[in-house]
Amino acid sequence: MTGRALFIGRFQPFHRGHLTMVRRILESNDEMIVGIGSAQYSHTGENPFTAGERYEMIKRSLDAEGILNYHIVPIPDTHVHSVWVSHVRSLVPHFDDVYTNSDLVVRLFREHGVKVHSPPLVDRERLSGTEVRQRMLKGGDWESLVPAVVAEYIREIDGIERIRETHKYSTPYGTRENHTQGDD
Amino acid sequence: MTGRALFIGRFQPFHRGHLTMVRRILESNDEMIVGIGSAQYSHTGENPFTAGERYEMIKRSLDAEGILNYHIVPIPDTHVHSVWVSHVRSLVPHFDDVYTNSDLVVRLFREHGVKVHSPPLVDRERLSGTEVRQRMLKGGDWESLVPAVVAEYIREIDGIERIRETHKYSTPYGTRENHTQGDD
Amino acid sequence: MTGRALFIGRFQPFHRGHLTMVRRILESNDEMIVGIGSAQYSHTGENPFTAGERYEMIKRSLDAEGILNYHIVPIPDTHVHSVWVSHVRSLVPHFDDVYTNSDLVVRLFREHGVKVHSPPLVDRERLSGTEVRQRMLKGGDWESLVPAVVAEYIREIDGIERIRETHKYSTPYGTRENHTQGDD
Amino acid sequence: MTGRALFIGRFQPFHRGHLTMVRRILESNDEMIVGIGSAQYSHTGENPFTAGERYEMIKRSLDAEGILNYHIVPIPDTHVHSVWVSHVRSLVPHFDDVYTNSDLVVRLFREHGVKVHSPPLVDRERLSGTEVRQRMLKGGDWESLVPAVVAEYIREIDGIERIRETHKYSTPYGTRENHTQGDD
Amino acid sequence: MTGRALFIGRFQPFHRGHLTMVRRILESNDEMIVGIGSAQYSHTGENPFTAGERYEMIKRSLDAEGILNYHIVPIPDTHVHSVWVSHVRSLVPHFDDVYTNSDLVVRLFREHGVKVHSPPLVDRERLSGTEVRQRMLKGGDWESLVPAVVAEYIREIDGIERIRETHKYSTPYGTRENHTQGDD
Amino acid sequence: MTGRALFIGRFQPFHRGHLTMVRRILESNDEMIVGIGSAQYSHTGENPFTAGERYEMIKRSLDAEGILNYHIVPIPDTHVHSVWVSHVRSLVPHFDDVYTNSDLVVRLFREHGVKVHSPPLVDRERLSGTEVRQRMLKGGDWESLVPAVVAEYIREIDGIERIRETHKYSTPYGTRENHTQGDD
Repeated sequence: MTGRALFIGRFQPFHRGHLTMVRRILESNDEMIVGIGSAQYSHTGENPFTAGERYEMIKRSLDAEGILNYHIVPIPDTHVHSVWVSHVRSLVPHFDDVYTNSDLVVRLFREHGVKVHSPPLVDRERLSGTEVRQRMLKGGDWESLVPAVVAEYIREIDGIERIRETHKYSTPYGTRENHTQGDD
Repeated sequence: MTGRALFIGRFQPFHRGHLTMVRRILESNDEMIVGIGSAQYSHTGENPFTAGERYEMIKRSLDAEGILNYHIVPIPDTHVHSVWVSHVRSLVPHFDDVYTNSDLVVRLFREHGVKVHSPPLVDRERLSGTEVRQRMLKGGDWESLVPAVVAEYIREIDGIERIRETHKYSTPYGTRENHTQGDD
Repeated sequence: MTGRALFIGRFQPFHRGHLTMVRRILESNDEMIVGIGSAQYSHTGENPFTAGERYEMIKRSLDAEGILNYHIVPIPDTHVHSVWVSHVRSLVPHFDDVYTNSDLVVRLFREHGVKVHSPPLVDRERLSGTEVRQRMLKGGDWESLVPAVVAEYIREIDGIERIRETHKYSTPYGTRENHTQGDD
Repeated sequence: MTGRALFIGRFQPFHRGHLTMVRRILESNDEMIVGIGSAQYSHTGENPFTAGERYEMIKRSLDAEGILNYHIVPIPDTHVHSVWVSHVRSLVPHFDDVYTNSDLVVRLFREHGVKVHSPPLVDRERLSGTEVRQRMLKGGDWESLVPAVVAEYIREIDGIERIRETHKYSTPYGTRENHTQGDD
Repeated sequence: MTGRALFIGRFQPFHRGHLTMVRRILESNDEMIVGIGSAQYSHTGENPFTAGERYEMIKRSLDAEGILNYHIVPIPDTHVHSVWVSHVRSLVPHFDDVYTNSDLVVRLFREHGVKVHSPPLVDRERLSGTEVRQRMLKGGDWESLVPAVVAEYIREIDGIERIRETHKYSTPYGTRENHTQGDD
Repeated sequence: MTGRALFIGRFQPFHRGHLTMVRRILESNDEMIVGIGSAQYSHTGENPFTAGERYEMIKRSLDAEGILNYHIVPIPDTHVHSVWVSHVRSLVPHFDDVYTNSDLVVRLFREHGVKVHSPPLVDRERLSGTEVRQRMLKGGDWESLVPAVVAEYIREIDGIERIRETHKYSTPYGTRENHTQGDD
């Protein structure tokens, strides 16, 4: 058990795959920072929820699990990838290793000599933000894909309605995967 | 008859559907503000004209109709939707209700408790900015879709040539509809 | 009588010196655009009022005088002076000459070959934004320096209180004169 | 005991006055969010430490006190005060009341109808960020003004040397007090 | 032989078509400036290399050819096309004519009265940045499309690996051609 | 003789002290990059000349000295100091050591493990940008402080007049020294 890990994602929304990842990271790290990427964006197809709302989802999920040794930090996109690692380092407290499923994040941290882990995801077909948002939009069973407190919170803030009204707007930030599947 | 309405659109270009909307809004409001969205953009497929050029189109159209009780205010995009309503409020004089055909604008104002109207559009298949720009590009009859003074102004500034030369460039702002139809 | 003039200022607040200038400009121009500079700033010592509030002050003042042939356009600062003239041109409808009391604005437009007028100000010691704001802050007679409708509007929005609470904060935009006198 | 409070400051560095404030806020609130303002700035006279470093100082101080019910969120400046409240709301989880010593923050939240507290500070002459930084620069006793863990951390990151090398550079954000005293 | 030419492109990467263009431009100009567009972007599908890396490729290629009368200037995108020409003019030393293959660049400079040349490209099917990047990604023969020193440099900085890991991310800047072919 | 040096300054304007520094750097380096800081700013008291104009001054001065092994790269300010080193690295080709007279630049590069030299300046009282600009403004002998080709170029672009008309405007970037002496 050593050190502090940084786990970076967009968490749109925070789902059971993310929660499994948090548990695994804490098996080999003393504490962790959950970095909320694309923090300034909301009300679009890829990024329906604000950073503050995502913060609330993560906090409630980890509290419900009795996990205490975490920090949550919103990280706005810079779009200028060459400065992004310095930007992250200036915003979050010191960390040792990085965990992420984004190939870009892996690449950027490795170019700066940081140790990055990109463990295989559990049940990736179902447990992806894109799948959750698609089900919310089309009316499928999305609740089973997220922690119960997240489902409750999304209903509390009228999240399904927001997704229906704003899904066709896109964020000026894109992975080409956005248009297909599986990016978060 | 009460109050001041804010009518928000991109007006690329200002067409007969917009003009009909202006007349209807003034049936139930004392005066109106025409907010030109995406004001900083021009010379792209979705946004060929500058805010100043769009201002001129709107002014000439309303003057030609003898409409006097209007104001025109360019509104640059923030891309950060969570601050957009505050941004609009800081740039335009006080307004009571909002009129728009953008689902996103409807949603954002409603989350701030503002009354928003989104009346059905007249002859939407023909009277859309996308259709007008397509006809300009392909050589169809676009003049009949816009007020006569707008057609004249666009010829004056060599607008068709600009659209042909810049239509393939896109604005770092998107609705997914851009790629299909009907967004303005 | 020819053409359309652009009159640029910050109008913090719109005072009697500005109103005199508007009247003079309209003696030799058919219509005018009032460009509200530093449009994105408010709640600071130099820029207490939002662009929307300044828009309201100007509109009420000109309406009270029976002046009709004007347009008001908020112009955000770019801070990058080399692109500022292109920025203004993209936001406002076509204009012929420029009127301003800012040496910088004079210089920038002249480098782009635009005709700029910088007529002597009336009663400059008293009629300056700095003097008006000082009196608002210190409790002197500021009402006599602004049009009656502006005084009324400022009271309506609780402007004096805002100036007292925010005057010590500065805008990330400066003329060195800010610290002494007479910049607006 | 009710609700969640937002405490906003720059914490350059986090000192004993801040710690006293945290304790008082938690006397009447269930939990609190510590919002780190001017989060993007560092390496200047007013803002020597990065948001990540300030995060570390606050975390270590509260952990040392056995305080658990807190969250820390970096908040970058927008400089555009009219959108700042919406910006804060989008970045942090829901809060009820605000606590701050900045007149500007008080004003901005009140204009948005949020309840703001600005309690008298303890021993303000000594316990201010400006005083701490002055002592660091001039070689006085600064350690007694901050929690022991903060003093230790600042030595760990070679903070005094950084302050000596960067104090003459200023942040493009200013209160006029910067030039005199007492702003944080 | 007269004057100084500005040659604008993205050079992702600098290929033999660009080199042929440089030679032709220098047949009718005393010296040239190579303007590297989209300078702030890297690590995406359209813009894999940083401006500094592109600078190195161009320098090594021209040095290898014994060409001496050139300057290289990185030019960040503004996205606001109406100010882009002023932006370029402020960053590079004086130039007479412009050479480019971008219709947008042609249009923008012509609207400012600058003489622009857009000569037919050599072997455009093969010699395009898009084709080179596709071959790098898919494993085809890309080396023969670029100067030998560029191929060597790309291997030196592990460029193929970077393209494989980041090609699916896009730049918040787009020509619609990006999605098909031939834009650079 | 080894490697490539990066020499960073604002060069407002390029004076004889800078030229002496260039010669010294080339005594122990094969080639050098001259990085023009605050590249986006012009038409203010601290930054009267555009990056393009400063480029021209440096190029003419080095050409007049028969110096060939140099590159000039404009570097816009980020204001966010924590990302500035990554920003510079992304814009300029590879360099080994850094030379500068800015304490901030020294500090920032050292925190990133880069070797920085800050050699004593020659005749610093006279040979500083601040002194040159003061003499231009007040009418003293500034020509003897700059290379002959720089004096000629400044007259060519009517630089003295620009300084007189814009010196009272400040750049949203400051060292406190600006207000006193010796910052460049």
